[in-house]
Amino acid sequence: MSTLLRHQLEKITPLSNEEFEYILSHFTERKFRKHQFLVQNGQPVKFDYFILNGCIKSYHTDNEGKIHIIQFGMQDWWITDYQAYYNQMTATMDIDCIEDTEVLCLSYENREKLCSEMHKIEHFFRKKTNTRNVALQQRILSLISNNAKERYNNLLEQYPQLFQKVPKHLIASYLGVTRETLSRLNATSK
Amino acid sequence: MSTLLRHQLEKITPLSNEEFEYILSHFTERKFRKHQFLVQNGQPVKFDYFILNGCIKSYHTDNEGKIHIIQFGMQDWWITDYQAYYNQMTATMDIDCIEDTEVLCLSYENREKLCSEMHKIEHFFRKKTNTRNVALQQRILSLISNNAKERYNNLLEQYPQLFQKVPKHLIASYLGVTRETLSRLNATSK
Repeated sequence: MSTLLRHQLEKITPLSNEEFEYILSHFTERKFRKHQFLVQNGQPVKFDYFILNGCIKSYHTDNEGKIHIIQFGMQDWWITDYQAYYNQMTATMDIDCIEDTEVLCLSYENREKLCSEMHKIEHFFRKKTNTRNVALQQRILSLISNNAKERYNNLLEQYPQLFQKVPKHLIASYLGVTRETLSRLNATSK
Repeated sequence: MSTLLRHQLEKITPLSNEEFEYILSHFTERKFRKHQFLVQNGQPVKFDYFILNGCIKSYHTDNEGKIHIIQFGMQDWWITDYQAYYNQMTATMDIDCIEDTEVLCLSYENREKLCSEMHKIEHFFRKKTNTRNVALQQRILSLISNNAKERYNNLLEQYPQLFQKVPKHLIASYLGVTRETLSRLNATSK
């Protein structure tokens, strides 16, 4: 399974076997069950998670108990509460599993150690973060300027596999619409 | 004015005078007048801009001609269309000056050159991008889970100086509310 990580690293920077083994030795593998938490609001955030398989959601629960989806995570995506992880603070969101999930965990200390020791790993994470930035910026633009139907179509076009894995009420929460609106969009988009 | 850049770099990584002069030689200084464009929708995006003084907005104009503010930029902030800059594509937004503005321009080629030559500059940009990531994620969370009053109060708390520099109708656009709603929020928050 670690070949998934190597494949992603090598899309940005070539690595020898020795280099990859050294990098991999800084990760730990973990399995989580459906509904199990990786990150809990108010708790310290020790790891960034590279997803080997499964499906994950990060979300905020408001004062009325309504959940707001921040991000989904699937195979070969990274997920954590980055605000808490980068600043080594406690989480302001929850992250749990939509289905049984396997991940590679990278602690903040090990990430900084690798980046400091290996220029090419610093390069990899700069490039990955650039890409995440672009995705976040697109989501903001979509939230402030698209209507629900446009947001739905954008998501379907970018991540069709999400619609197979993720329950409808969570897609609705991600899009900021009611489940009924989503059903209507779903019907009119076919 | 370039001491502003040095100060920001040195918050993350120490630099010798020679190193800083070398880095600075990769930037060009430019002045823009109020209303002048730094980036235009459909045009190539050559530079990332470090703001020496002034005030800038990036925005999307929808089919009805309504503008949606993506970001503001003030002294010692960076601004560009990052999707276009990182991928060397044409812009999908406009960026122009709210007041006369001076910037240091860093081309994509020079940024990549510096990052490749100097590990500490790669480190600087990774850390800066992490910070931008957190800000973008907070904005998404605010857009999907806060009401207008909460968004207004968050912005006022984080960036009080914006309220001095930026016209009310642009603040309203950033928050995704009408100007009338903003006036009401403004009155009730005092």
